[in-house]
Amino acid sequence: MSEITPTEELSQWLATLETALARADADAAAALFNEDSYWRDLVSFTWNIATAEGKPNVRAMIEQAAIPAKPTNWRLEGEASKSGDMTEGWIRFETAVARGYGYLRLTGGKAWTLLTTMTELKGFEEAKGTLRAKGVEHGVQPGRKTWLERRRQEEAELGVTRESYVVIVGGGQGGIALGARLKRLNVPTIIVEKNERPGDSWRKRYKSLCLHDPVWYDHLPYLPFPDHWPVFSPKDKIADWLEMYSKVMELDYWGGTECKSARYDDAAKQWTVEVLRNGKPMTLRPRHLVLATGMSAVPNLPEIPGMETFKGDLHHSSRHPGPDAYKGKKAVVIGSNNSAHDIAAALWELGADVTMIQRSSTHVARSDMLMDLALGGLYSESAVKAGITTDKADLLFASLPYKILPSLQVPVYAEMKKRDADFYARLEKAGFMLDFGDDDSGLFLKYLRRGSGYYIDVGASGLVADGKIKLKSGVAVERVKEHSVAFSDGSELPADLIVFATGYGSMNGWAAQLISKEVADKVGKCWGLGSDTRKDPGPWEGELRNMWKPTHQEALWFHGGNLHQSRHFSQFLSLQLKARMEGIPTPVYGMGPVHHVS
Amino acid sequence: MSEITPTEELSQWLATLETALARADADAAAALFNEDSYWRDLVSFTWNIATAEGKPNVRAMIEQAAIPAKPTNWRLEGEASKSGDMTEGWIRFETAVARGYGYLRLTGGKAWTLLTTMTELKGFEEAKGTLRAKGVEHGVQPGRKTWLERRRQEEAELGVTRESYVVIVGGGQGGIALGARLKRLNVPTIIVEKNERPGDSWRKRYKSLCLHDPVWYDHLPYLPFPDHWPVFSPKDKIADWLEMYSKVMELDYWGGTECKSARYDDAAKQWTVEVLRNGKPMTLRPRHLVLATGMSAVPNLPEIPGMETFKGDLHHSSRHPGPDAYKGKKAVVIGSNNSAHDIAAALWELGADVTMIQRSSTHVARSDMLMDLALGGLYSESAVKAGITTDKADLLFASLPYKILPSLQVPVYAEMKKRDADFYARLEKAGFMLDFGDDDSGLFLKYLRRGSGYYIDVGASGLVADGKIKLKSGVAVERVKEHSVAFSDGSELPADLIVFATGYGSMNGWAAQLISKEVADKVGKCWGLGSDTRKDPGPWEGELRNMWKPTHQEALWFHGGNLHQSRHFSQFLSLQLKARMEGIPTPVYGMGPVHHVS
Repeated sequence: MSEITPTEELSQWLATLETALARADADAAAALFNEDSYWRDLVSFTWNIATAEGKPNVRAMIEQAAIPAKPTNWRLEGEASKSGDMTEGWIRFETAVARGYGYLRLTGGKAWTLLTTMTELKGFEEAKGTLRAKGVEHGVQPGRKTWLERRRQEEAELGVTRESYVVIVGGGQGGIALGARLKRLNVPTIIVEKNERPGDSWRKRYKSLCLHDPVWYDHLPYLPFPDHWPVFSPKDKIADWLEMYSKVMELDYWGGTECKSARYDDAAKQWTVEVLRNGKPMTLRPRHLVLATGMSAVPNLPEIPGMETFKGDLHHSSRHPGPDAYKGKKAVVIGSNNSAHDIAAALWELGADVTMIQRSSTHVARSDMLMDLALGGLYSESAVKAGITTDKADLLFASLPYKILPSLQVPVYAEMKKRDADFYARLEKAGFMLDFGDDDSGLFLKYLRRGSGYYIDVGASGLVADGKIKLKSGVAVERVKEHSVAFSDGSELPADLIVFATGYGSMNGWAAQLISKEVADKVGKCWGLGSDTRKDPGPWEGELRNMWKPTHQEALWFHGGNLHQSRHFSQFLSLQLKARMEGIPTPVYGMGPVHHVS
Repeated sequence: MSEITPTEELSQWLATLETALARADADAAAALFNEDSYWRDLVSFTWNIATAEGKPNVRAMIEQAAIPAKPTNWRLEGEASKSGDMTEGWIRFETAVARGYGYLRLTGGKAWTLLTTMTELKGFEEAKGTLRAKGVEHGVQPGRKTWLERRRQEEAELGVTRESYVVIVGGGQGGIALGARLKRLNVPTIIVEKNERPGDSWRKRYKSLCLHDPVWYDHLPYLPFPDHWPVFSPKDKIADWLEMYSKVMELDYWGGTECKSARYDDAAKQWTVEVLRNGKPMTLRPRHLVLATGMSAVPNLPEIPGMETFKGDLHHSSRHPGPDAYKGKKAVVIGSNNSAHDIAAALWELGADVTMIQRSSTHVARSDMLMDLALGGLYSESAVKAGITTDKADLLFASLPYKILPSLQVPVYAEMKKRDADFYARLEKAGFMLDFGDDDSGLFLKYLRRGSGYYIDVGASGLVADGKIKLKSGVAVERVKEHSVAFSDGSELPADLIVFATGYGSMNGWAAQLISKEVADKVGKCWGLGSDTRKDPGPWEGELRNMWKPTHQEALWFHGGNLHQSRHFSQFLSLQLKARMEGIPTPVYGMGPVHHVS
């Protein structure tokens, strides 16, 4: 028997899968998977974001989602590659209603991981490339309107005399990325944002803020940053970009508009959304409501006895203006994650006397090391040079189900711990409590599980290690007095400024505020994987709760995350909304019960 | 003797050239060229935009420009290709001070065309890719400024307490594209524009205006349009793009600023530029002055007896507001090029009674046909799919010297004439006087030679053929009366509106206005090739006069053209300015005498 090439191996596997699915033979299709295997589907078969883990669950997904979707035309794109026992490659396929793209890994000739994602709905493709608008209709048409006249008419009518199909609450990068995708799909959408201009939610944060993620990870859909864009975008620069992007993508962006309430009419299948647009009450009646209020929308401000008696400035980190007013003052920063470090460092740079209060252990990873060890393979200049486009990087990352991610991350952080041993030793010597996650799986899993608990070091850790930022570790804040803060160990610190860098609550808290406690409880907690680690209670969910996928409240969606997630998952949320607008059946597979309400 | 591959053939040719140049052996180097050959150099050897035509001139350029520049490291990039007798491919090379890119065609083993272009100055590379700024300096620095603070400081200081190195007069696409390149090269530059906002020069034109060139031809440097951008950008949409581009590229763009005068101090090597910035007089003292006031900066408004007595609206096309006020009115549009057709069609669409006055024959090419036959190979969706990036398209186009362009264009337009025979027959039947250029070389050569004399048909020709836009052909305008226009054939037309779509004067007219008649005459006419065809008097120049290259007035430069030229040639102008700023020697080769003053 002659050796077959990796490309032949994958092609044959796909052909066998296609035959089995076409015959509706779930057993034969499932037989192509290992016992330990994963099929992750982003919308193409499940109309959900769902991962089937293990052969029995894969078989169930095949029977109940894949076969009914009538997939055809499975084929390899490009050449497959082989390394040891593993053969892998890019795949394309179609369903009755859509086209898809994915990534397949075989071990021992059977599937270990299969990623399937929807790229476009047949008959509703984005008007791009050869399908783009002509811009001017050649020939002459009496009474025709110019682009500007049509655009102005659209702006005047949408939400006023003509309802939008979608309302997105929140016009940060999440709302903007989703708005751009919906615009390209011709889904009428209004983005409601309480700040005046796109980008203001960045502009209004502390002045030293820069993105902690590198530029290759941060592109918005369709319009990548030019290649001189700084690695770590300063906040005002990313704000200007978001503003420019919203304008040239022709988003219907209602700045200066506050969402006051929303309620769903089950019979009419329609939301009633009350907003104040530049102070004027208006009612919007979209079919779908997306909360893109951000992971960082509902500040956690702990209630501490005596807070109201404090004579200095006291605020949550989301309201911290930056250090300018605090030169020579005494500052207490409560918290030890990203914001706490950024704010403390900027205060120290300006000459404030700063103490950081660390209440529990924190994961610290140096930014350079993260690039080298964790992100660089997919998101870096060398990845770009190796032909890994942003789209491909996103899909390669998505091709690793969350269940197996910790096992792949643990060695990365073990290496980081080794390379930066001196750095970590200095921090510990200064009294800083370190961790690498409950299972040593590091930063990205902390982000997925709880969205907190880490600092990406861009310099402040050195100040902590050197004692320039003073540290008080392992204590709780017991009381705020007129000019000081008192701690659980009996000590007390004088303070002119107290910053609570104490994080944010679950996004469904925003649903409780806008809609009702009942709806918030019905949909349950957002984010987190159910990993049964600190701040991420089980049971295991397999995917982030409620994000970018149907919730237990009809027509209510949550969108958010970092720029990478806003870019990548807006694709799948936009396709789900477009399909519903066009009346394409969207049977949802794999909708689990709600385990936690917040 | 075994056959050598095209790649080997080109590589050997380059090696032989390199050896000859290194030995300073001009004869040996020239021997590598055919008698009928062309070396076109964009700045890399000549510090000029110059084409040596024929072996003796190539030899002179080798001796006086190429050898002194000490080129090395000539090599083929990728694989060469062969078709018939011709072998061609991409090349890279270096000089003592710069890196270059180019394209080489051999016939019979010797060079037919060689294009060499400068891509970057050694030691002064753009901070892109791996060289990009980090955006945040990791580590902590007491007193450091944020991006926004530095940007605001730069805006406050430049031109006020700190002189810019360059002042660009005119903030249309030309000034903006050049400004972006100079920004990336760290050349302090102020763009002075009398309109308030970038893009206003488009916004203020007649409302139906769309670009006549397709999107693939129109990208600005660094930040291409997203792939849904319409093929023919409506004017307000391109205006918004220019505004956003200027913002995110951080251009120092002084809107609402009128340039009143400029004079050069030969001793101080410095300009004194008087401007009114938002009505306030200010003096700028740059080292270099770029006039980017546009090919369409100085309107030609003929003086016709009786103009001042006209009771209706009379204006040049550049001031035409669009048709809205003229429903049911009688309009006379004088001229038969792009603007005349656009304006006449929009007036007809709105219900005006329109007559077009054609004074001399006009070249008409249908937009679709231009895409199919003339542009599509380099600038189209299929070109993009074939891997022809915008940069490569620009260079392939540049690789064909202007001398041989007509012979390549004649068959294109012969084919167009054939395919659109019915269309042209209908136009002629309606009395429209057609031409395809003096030598039937068509549209692009008309554009290069005289910048006028054509209409890219997007529908108005059908209206002319059908008599919906009335036509009066082969007459001159003799007199304007209170309510009519009288013609050389004795006829007279009643008129409520007269639009003079009569084109624009040479850009050095702007130098006359701003600087002096002496300087304008010293530098001479801008644009045109000296083809000795109508409106392009000889002698032959080989390159466009005065554009993007040194002029006979030290430190005075002209920049302009369509979006393609603004993009492509801004690269070479920016490198010339950067080299001067850094004190790199820039010996100019091939500077010809001035033959025409306007």
